[in-house]
Amino acid sequence: YAPARCTAAQTSAEQGVLPPCHHHEAVHDSQLVPCTCPLFSCPWEGHLEVVVSHLRQTHRINILQGAEIVFLATDMHLPAPTDWIIMHSCLGHQFLLVLRKQEKYEGHPQFFATMMLIGTPTQADNFTYRLELNRNQRRLKWEATPRSVLECVDSVISDGDCLVLNTSLAQLFSDNGSLAIGIAITTSKVHNAEAEM
Amino acid sequence: YAPARCTAAQTSAEQGVLPPCHHHEAVHDSQLVPCTCPLFSCPWEGHLEVVVSHLRQTHRINILQGAEIVFLATDMHLPAPTDWIIMHSCLGHQFLLVLRKQEKYEGHPQFFATMMLIGTPTQADNFTYRLELNRNQRRLKWEATPRSVLECVDSVISDGDCLVLNTSLAQLFSDNGSLAIGIAITTSKVHNAEAEM
Repeated sequence: YAPARCTAAQTSAEQGVLPPCHHHEAVHDSQLVPCTCPLFSCPWEGHLEVVVSHLRQTHRINILQGAEIVFLATDMHLPAPTDWIIMHSCLGHQFLLVLRKQEKYEGHPQFFATMMLIGTPTQADNFTYRLELNRNQRRLKWEATPRSVLECVDSVISDGDCLVLNTSLAQLFSDNGSLAIGIAITTSKVHNAEAEM
Repeated sequence: YAPARCTAAQTSAEQGVLPPCHHHEAVHDSQLVPCTCPLFSCPWEGHLEVVVSHLRQTHRINILQGAEIVFLATDMHLPAPTDWIIMHSCLGHQFLLVLRKQEKYEGHPQFFATMMLIGTPTQADNFTYRLELNRNQRRLKWEATPRSVLECVDSVISDGDCLVLNTSLAQLFSDNGSLAIGIAITTSKVHNAEAEM
């Protein structure tokens, strides 16, 4: 890695109330979608094509470019629930990384990390994302197909279908209270790779 | 992978009582060490060199050979606490893989997997082990330095310094109640790699 580094947007969800999910089903490109930012209860809705500019302008979510980037989540000690969010621009698309600290079991906060494509579920199926932690002679890698932001990030996390870290592992991978997450996106289907040549 | 497959030795710890740890400190080669098998409370003790034959003969722990093997843990639905154990012979040494199902938080069993070298902590520092799960378009890899069996497997697991899976992830990676864990061992230091040439 010789990646860009960036401190992520970060917000403690107020009073533990996470925004509701309005968008469990896939929508057509022409439909309006609600704000997909999990940080805030936001009344905004718009077309999928303008979600990125909304997230950037209204919620000040940073965007990083490159095939492989490192997302630096600071202040990992903040109490749950807390979200860290960044956008990743890659392969002609924008992805949203969500790192969430949450207490599934009271008194035992865990960290959950997943990537969502700012696009449809069909588009998301064309990609594979990899999250990698690497420190103290330990390495943890998680690879999966991103979900679409039209699906609900809350359900991905409550299903546990993402990178899950308990507090002790998060500390082993942290440096001075910050967690560096290596992110890489690749195309997952042969015909896509061919189409790009 | 085109690995050997083997069903692991597997035992539900009786009444939830795990064997005590007698060997927190490193010992000299000449010292007697207690049985390192976490499955049973076993009164045996002997030299480090005969631990492997003890585990094989008395506890019927299987041994697999090869640079990359797949350990197939069956009956993942068994109630916690349950251990799955296998020995892995590689690079002139024997390693012990321990997969444990345990309820750190009551009602929420998790799976913990780690590798121990049947050797001293100094010898263990020369190696890196990798555990890999790969199924349903998801991949999870854990890489770390093995601990010595002279350290206590219980403390490795209670520290959470190992591969940790919650039940939902374990189900995503399981096939028909069985979890296939890819295992690879490499030497971690340059001078070792050179010494083997």
